[in-house]
Amino acid sequence: MSVVAEAASAREAEQRCRIVATAERLFREIGFQKTTVADIARALRMSPANVYRFFGSKSEIHVAVARQLMGEVEAAAQRIAAGPGTASERLRALVRCNEAMNADRYLADRKMHEMVEAALDEHWPMIDEHIDRVDAVVQFLVASGMESGEFAKGDPELAAKLVHTALIRFCHPRLMVECADRPEPTSEQMIDFCLAALRAGVSR
Amino acid sequence: MSVVAEAASAREAEQRCRIVATAERLFREIGFQKTTVADIARALRMSPANVYRFFGSKSEIHVAVARQLMGEVEAAAQRIAAGPGTASERLRALVRCNEAMNADRYLADRKMHEMVEAALDEHWPMIDEHIDRVDAVVQFLVASGMESGEFAKGDPELAAKLVHTALIRFCHPRLMVECADRPEPTSEQMIDFCLAALRAGVSR
Repeated sequence: MSVVAEAASAREAEQRCRIVATAERLFREIGFQKTTVADIARALRMSPANVYRFFGSKSEIHVAVARQLMGEVEAAAQRIAAGPGTASERLRALVRCNEAMNADRYLADRKMHEMVEAALDEHWPMIDEHIDRVDAVVQFLVASGMESGEFAKGDPELAAKLVHTALIRFCHPRLMVECADRPEPTSEQMIDFCLAALRAGVSR
Repeated sequence: MSVVAEAASAREAEQRCRIVATAERLFREIGFQKTTVADIARALRMSPANVYRFFGSKSEIHVAVARQLMGEVEAAAQRIAAGPGTASERLRALVRCNEAMNADRYLADRKMHEMVEAALDEHWPMIDEHIDRVDAVVQFLVASGMESGEFAKGDPELAAKLVHTALIRFCHPRLMVECADRPEPTSEQMIDFCLAALRAGVSR
């Protein structure tokens, strides 16, 4: 790529980032459903036509905002998994971080929860991708615990899916809202339960 | 109670039963939202006013139908818990039965799923009651496994909530739909995982 083309491409990426960041802020302030492309353009002092140069439709902006939010959660999980500590400690830290980030993103802000509802009701494909990415990080942790002898030997892919599914009440934004009035089990108790199963290993 | 009053009370109970059974059938045939009190009355060859003698409003009929459906699931769970077999075997049978009954009631029939959506979106209090009742049956099973030495000693109430929450993806009708395309983990695999944790016991 030429220097000129590279600079143009960097500018494009920057513009996309600004649009996504502004859309996210407006979703929080005005609401996900109410925010229009015109609102986003106005906040950025650009024309709607310019926004449409980067995103073909409002729903493409939705997808980009959701991907950004989920990407941050995935990045945090990856940092924890690659960090120091035993597999159990990192798994606990990952679940705590995931729960806190989801609560902050989707629950604290009722307006943002609208986006979660739409994503779930309309089956946005990125939800499955997000689950797969978190599965992969958990699998990495479980495999490392199996190698170190911390967990019983077994199939790390399946074990990761079991842990992730057992913890769904603390990951899934709609369930977090639905179960908010049920104090037990806490996520800490559920992590202990999962760790007990991982240490013991599954034998029928 | 006099013989006359008893007979009148039995007739009243029978009428209520017939209304609930007819409403359930119409929810499946016409749909939960579309079925009116007039439809229910017509199917029973009675006047709407007569239906209103038993149920103050359409939403009281909704509640009665949902309670009936959930009551059947609870009764099946109780029968299994009180039946023969080890605690592990009964727990497995209970989860299988619960999943099959929920799939049959709320998933096979998209029209019935409308009622589930309404119950969840409107936070019908019977959902919490249902969860508490299933928790109680699971607690009975876990306690009997702890007594027999099949499971590690511990707090059966908390352990039951952990098992029930770990299995939520196989109990919660909306999650059953959402996760239908994810073949793993299966409920059998999740039961194995929970049994491993129960046998090992939780120690930090």
